Amino acid sequence: MTRKLYSLCGSDRARPFSPHVWKTAMSLAHKGLDFDTVPIGFTEIRAIEDGATNLVPLLRDGEKLVKDSFEIALYLERTYPDRPALFAGEGAMAISRFVEGWSQATLHPAVTRIIIRDIHDRLDPVDQAYFRESREKRFGTSLEAVAESGGSSLATFSEKLEPLRHLLKIQDFLGGATPLFADYIVFGAFQWARIVSPQRLLQPGDPVTAWFERCLDLHGGLGRSVTAA
Amino acid sequence: MTRKLYSLCGSDRARPFSPHVWKTAMSLAHKGLDFDTVPIGFTEIRAIEDGATNLVPLLRDGEKLVKDSFEIALYLERTYPDRPALFAGEGAMAISRFVEGWSQATLHPAVTRIIIRDIHDRLDPVDQAYFRESREKRFGTSLEAVAESGGSSLATFSEKLEPLRHLLKIQDFLGGATPLFADYIVFGAFQWARIVSPQRLLQPGDPVTAWFERCLDLHGGLGRSVTAA
Repeated sequence: MTRKLYSLCGSDRARPFSPHVWKTAMSLAHKGLDFDTVPIGFTEIRAIEDGATNLVPLLRDGEKLVKDSFEIALYLERTYPDRPALFAGEGAMAISRFVEGWSQATLHPAVTRIIIRDIHDRLDPVDQAYFRESREKRFGTSLEAVAESGGSSLATFSEKLEPLRHLLKIQDFLGGATPLFADYIVFGAFQWARIVSPQRLLQPGDPVTAWFERCLDLHGGLGRSVTAA
Repeated sequence: MTRKLYSLCGSDRARPFSPHVWKTAMSLAHKGLDFDTVPIGFTEIRAIEDGATNLVPLLRDGEKLVKDSFEIALYLERTYPDRPALFAGEGAMAISRFVEGWSQATLHPAVTRIIIRDIHDRLDPVDQAYFRESREKRFGTSLEAVAESGGSSLATFSEKLEPLRHLLKIQDFLGGATPLFADYIVFGAFQWARIVSPQRLLQPGDPVTAWFERCLDLHGGLGRSVTAA
């Protein structure tokens, strides 16, 4: 196999959890492209492919190395135009950046607060030290204080999903009747939480829950290949 | 002129303010289609075109009547495919619904609270009575209490714009290098506030302010044809 996806894991190398790597795994499956998953820990990222990246995902596709989940999706769309579309037009390539912005600005900070201790506890000791230091720097406070704020983030989490509920009244996926990369952007955040944490961000009966379950069913149930925590 | 856009106004019939009508005015200009603006008050909506609608915008295009800004944009894209694209592909038609959902769930409730008294004070008495009754029913409290909550909505308004700021680091418009209907969805909310209220929702130096100014410059400065309050 010449296609390799470097995927962030904790101590259990069979449970890749990075939201951004999941965006790429779903993108590859959407295009019907086989790939090998290469599990790595946080502190191994800088050593792979001669220091090609300090972030995952990193995709090796034959001779080509591509990083960043959005850049990889654009690369796949250009390189495999005859496979199912990840964007379905130039307009969606631009507007999907808004979905990315919403996911990064609205979902990710809240999810991080809710699951930060669960992430930490699943890492090898060397990655725990890195994770604590980098996250404490990012949040400007202790990991324990960030985790403490997770309770109120969880309490208000459902409100943040209103834009999705508006859309799901009209159609089954962000992409319309079938998914596009925009769906995988949002899926990544929920899949990250599902794999790492026993806390439940989505409630039964919520249209967002039904959408997430539909996403888990896609591509032969790829998302379910890792069980919920 | 066979093309007519029914546009919501207050006492000053030269100052259409509806965010949704502005989405359509910009869509028509984007397609290079001339239209006459027909100003109406809230309580006149049900009487136009033999009771065709209880909401604006309503577009008459020759024999055809179309309501709802998103439906009108889809209609224009299908009917005038050789004019500049409002979506640029099927993907954007679907994903623009997410932008609409975000605008409706995040921007509109906050903007309404901030400018509700300014809207009320600009209406004819008969429309003031309708506006008060319908908005008090929607919010479950007095118009004065909603207006009172506008202060805290204004204080936290800037935070809500982070998804846009993420996108504006990468490109000039939601549509990419040039605008699409997704831009007009968001533009409508800010243009509504600009026309109705002297309160300033956008601050100098914010990339969102620079984007809004770019939108005001579009199509011969159509957005500037009504001055700021």
